[in-house]
Amino acid sequence: MTTLLHLRKDEERRLRTGHVWIYSNEIDITRSPLRGLEPGQAVEVMSSRGQWLGHGYVNPNTLIAARIVSRDREHPLDRSLIVHRLNIALALRQRLYPQPYYRLVHGEADGLPGLVVDRYGDVLVAQLTTAGMDRMREAVIGALDQVLRPKAVILRNDVNSRTLEGLPTGVEVAFGEAPDHLVVHEGAARFEVPALEGQKTGWFHDQAANREQLTRYAQGRTVLDVFSYAGGWGIRAALAGATGVTAVDASERALDWLTANAARNGVEDRVSTLRGDAFEVLRALRAEGKHFDIVVLDPPAFIKRRKDAKEGQLAYRRLHDAALTLLSRDGLLVSASCSHHFAEEDLLRTAQSAARANDRSLQCLATGHAGPDHPVHPAMPETAYLKAFFLRVLPTF
Amino acid sequence: MTTLLHLRKDEERRLRTGHVWIYSNEIDITRSPLRGLEPGQAVEVMSSRGQWLGHGYVNPNTLIAARIVSRDREHPLDRSLIVHRLNIALALRQRLYPQPYYRLVHGEADGLPGLVVDRYGDVLVAQLTTAGMDRMREAVIGALDQVLRPKAVILRNDVNSRTLEGLPTGVEVAFGEAPDHLVVHEGAARFEVPALEGQKTGWFHDQAANREQLTRYAQGRTVLDVFSYAGGWGIRAALAGATGVTAVDASERALDWLTANAARNGVEDRVSTLRGDAFEVLRALRAEGKHFDIVVLDPPAFIKRRKDAKEGQLAYRRLHDAALTLLSRDGLLVSASCSHHFAEEDLLRTAQSAARANDRSLQCLATGHAGPDHPVHPAMPETAYLKAFFLRVLPTF
Repeated sequence: MTTLLHLRKDEERRLRTGHVWIYSNEIDITRSPLRGLEPGQAVEVMSSRGQWLGHGYVNPNTLIAARIVSRDREHPLDRSLIVHRLNIALALRQRLYPQPYYRLVHGEADGLPGLVVDRYGDVLVAQLTTAGMDRMREAVIGALDQVLRPKAVILRNDVNSRTLEGLPTGVEVAFGEAPDHLVVHEGAARFEVPALEGQKTGWFHDQAANREQLTRYAQGRTVLDVFSYAGGWGIRAALAGATGVTAVDASERALDWLTANAARNGVEDRVSTLRGDAFEVLRALRAEGKHFDIVVLDPPAFIKRRKDAKEGQLAYRRLHDAALTLLSRDGLLVSASCSHHFAEEDLLRTAQSAARANDRSLQCLATGHAGPDHPVHPAMPETAYLKAFFLRVLPTF
Repeated sequence: MTTLLHLRKDEERRLRTGHVWIYSNEIDITRSPLRGLEPGQAVEVMSSRGQWLGHGYVNPNTLIAARIVSRDREHPLDRSLIVHRLNIALALRQRLYPQPYYRLVHGEADGLPGLVVDRYGDVLVAQLTTAGMDRMREAVIGALDQVLRPKAVILRNDVNSRTLEGLPTGVEVAFGEAPDHLVVHEGAARFEVPALEGQKTGWFHDQAANREQLTRYAQGRTVLDVFSYAGGWGIRAALAGATGVTAVDASERALDWLTANAARNGVEDRVSTLRGDAFEVLRALRAEGKHFDIVVLDPPAFIKRRKDAKEGQLAYRRLHDAALTLLSRDGLLVSASCSHHFAEEDLLRTAQSAARANDRSLQCLATGHAGPDHPVHPAMPETAYLKAFFLRVLPTF
């Protein structure tokens, strides 16, 4: 017998637009008490008037109390549905990417809420971010094996969202034997990062399209790559003809990988590193009177939760102030943010305010987002988190 | 003696953010009566407290009563300033474009309010859209000659904004001898359009980056190019491997140019045309049971003024409904709008509503804008008018 989850009156409206989240206050807890449900349990979602809305799963302990996974009555969340959705996801990536390095599954936008899968050739790195998807763990791994025949599937379940869902966190090799390194081919570059550590799943595939954009601007230019991690921006710029790249990161290990990646791509003579807090390093560079033709700001999310907004905005502003003073006349500022709670227009406004305060004019040449392997669900603005502005910086008009 | 334009109390705020427009109700008409000023006359803009804000020009007859052109006291709008700004504009385009086909000057965002210049190799097509810039006509043409040594400068002053400014409209050859045709090289394609007719300045350079995106998706696919004009989308898709392109336009002349352009690029065997009202043609195609892998919707602005919003939104919705029914399973809908008064999120919402109503799921793969030759002024949202969504269309998840 399936469990029915009844919504309160009119609370199906957002779902009708295509959104798949149900908040706890939208549920009619008289008809369907949440406390009787297990985290991750499958449910069928019903409107207050008894219309069937979809198959989903619940978590009585989280703000997002349920997610719709299928609007087809005959297809609940099972291995067969996961295989089907994986094939749809794969078809898109195979069509667009010449090489198998990309995000293969991007959660809700690929019809698999709670699942992220990044592909590194024949190694897959997955994240099960909700109790509902965590219960499907064996089906997910089986489906990945069936569709992609990977050498290994690594679970990078060391994510905060699992703690909120009441799930244990950690990293494990769920299938096959994990290699020491993950390999990424991006444009003309080849990167390696350790397989079981590194940030996120090991690589920020989401910035690949923006790094590709950067290559248009790099020829003959000097580049300051702030929050460089393992060198995605800087090394691609060097390969595109940048004459000098200075990479800044707080992590010594990240800079070690970056240095190895620079050598791997034959650009070690043009890439140097500075370890330290970004704000302090930028201040020191300014004190030395250094200038760069291009500054890339790709910080971690300063605003992870709404309550961080004020402090985070100040941090973004300080960062822009510092970057502007380090730019050459007619420079390029690449300013990215992955903060959900910092909208595109907020980031642009921050850049523009900093420019005015520092007596500069900006031209916004391009607004980048995550690439097509990170589709956006048009009914879920929450799935569009990444923005990157390409800003030409000139003396005030 | 220069004329001072005094603002009312606190009305300099928007200007301080970098914006350059002054509305008539922001002017202290007691201190600086507008009716005494000539359309296009140079002014110096002052805050209510007597702070110098910039050099500008006025038009007492328009809602935007004045525009700032320089915040440097020593450099008012003259030929020397225009030459300087042209050089800055040119430096950007020369760095980014391998061939001289682009928008060279994009008004406010290039520091030259009221001036648009598109480059077609050694032919320039300019628009003087305000009285202030129209008064500088000879300086503009002289500066263009000095910086670019063009064979010809054509003035496409057949724009509505000139009527609002109280200026005559028309097309003329202002310098040199205009050729019969304008030539555009875009990616691997070469296009020709007549020099003195055609839409806008002859070509929609603003969609070049989005057409480039389309080439990623075109290989082996059939394409319906709605509002095709002279073939920018369709012919680039054919060159990128589309197996069949059907171009729809209401203008027989546009389709004649398109057919000639198809032959010019050696893809005439894969390109066909349908002349007629887009809505009627799409209905007829549906009645015939036709399907396409890719549908491109690049309509003229349905919402030119705010009061057109309701009717225009309905037109966009109908267009999306029609396109969705013509798409193959796992199709791509490219949906563009150049309506200032139809925001990006409105267009996406329209597409998503149509998808839900037609039992489809959408994945937004990319959000495109005008290319870097159409910079956006970060303090002037008005300068960001073009959006193009790349939407994968699937059966409902």
